[in-house]
Amino acid sequence: MLSPARFVLAAALLLVLRLPAPAPVSAARPIVADKPAPSEATATARWLAAQNTWGVLSTISSDLNGAPFGNVVSYSDGLPGEGHGIPYFYLTTLDPTARDALEDERTSFTLSEFPLGTCGKIDPENPTCSKLTLNGKLKLVDLQSSEADFAKSALFTKHPEMKDWPKNHHFKIFKLEIENIFLIDWFGGPKPISPSQYLEFERNKQSVMSS
Amino acid sequence: MLSPARFVLAAALLLVLRLPAPAPVSAARPIVADKPAPSEATATARWLAAQNTWGVLSTISSDLNGAPFGNVVSYSDGLPGEGHGIPYFYLTTLDPTARDALEDERTSFTLSEFPLGTCGKIDPENPTCSKLTLNGKLKLVDLQSSEADFAKSALFTKHPEMKDWPKNHHFKIFKLEIENIFLIDWFGGPKPISPSQYLEFERNKQSVMSS
Repeated sequence: MLSPARFVLAAALLLVLRLPAPAPVSAARPIVADKPAPSEATATARWLAAQNTWGVLSTISSDLNGAPFGNVVSYSDGLPGEGHGIPYFYLTTLDPTARDALEDERTSFTLSEFPLGTCGKIDPENPTCSKLTLNGKLKLVDLQSSEADFAKSALFTKHPEMKDWPKNHHFKIFKLEIENIFLIDWFGGPKPISPSQYLEFERNKQSVMSS
Repeated sequence: MLSPARFVLAAALLLVLRLPAPAPVSAARPIVADKPAPSEATATARWLAAQNTWGVLSTISSDLNGAPFGNVVSYSDGLPGEGHGIPYFYLTTLDPTARDALEDERTSFTLSEFPLGTCGKIDPENPTCSKLTLNGKLKLVDLQSSEADFAKSALFTKHPEMKDWPKNHHFKIFKLEIENIFLIDWFGGPKPISPSQYLEFERNKQSVMSS
């Protein structure tokens, strides 16, 4: 039998243990390590670019008389844990996206937080499930440049099978020169982030990019 | 001790049990129930539309002087297990995508098999990890029509939180009138599927759409 004092203590302990935790801002959202707070818009944009491995690249379609054309592509913005924010792609002109970009460089690249699994039960279109659209020009990277070496290393580390893709498909490295950033990571509309804020963010905040 | 006959039998049994299984076409790809064979292109396209719940909708951007603009959106092509192939969306003109479409209807909607989890270790850009791009015109659906009732039911069943989204955001129902279909589900380039093949597929193949 417990003494009355111990009984009170035990009852109090049980009460504390059984009390519900304070309700989080969004009950269905899991707490995710490494994900920046919604107030840190630039960090969130860079986190989305560093954590994802694929997205949709949209071009102005020459096959479809200038209509937009979105295509699923893989990409990398750096080695795991060392994202630099610029997405590099490994594309073949057998695919319409690369052909389109060589005729009209204007391109949009779109990423969602949803496939990372960190939106929990929040709907993919809910503004608190973040999404990033980078607009700019899709440029060929000179295969003889040091940038191409960096891009190959970044791509082949996150996408190991790429290095074995058929040589006769003549895959080329492309990069997105970012001119406009559209980020939604909370209520209240897109966050204003300039390309320089986005690209220079890493200098002081490498830890956010860990994956 | 085993008799010689039993020893031979046991050894044969051991041999059979320890033999590796015949190598599948693609060792890293899991065998997925309900996923149509790569040779069944139309079924695969409809399966992708029925199984996914979000994708990237690309428009001609008025804010960005006619550049393409891809945006993450939720959608539904019908009740679970009863997909009809036409994607319906619930969009607000607070978002650039709906505003763009009201100025220029030309739109591209892109889906990947990758987030379904059925590509296994295959890269998202590998042609055997299927991807679907539906091009056409994004049209407003009259909220007083029976089509709007169908679309609302389809959307709110797959995206329950939508029905509680803020009334003052004036969400509207849009549909994609499909004019061109781009499907990659195996090596050898995109599969030719006409909009009518795609839309009429369900009549005899409801079972493929089960989810």
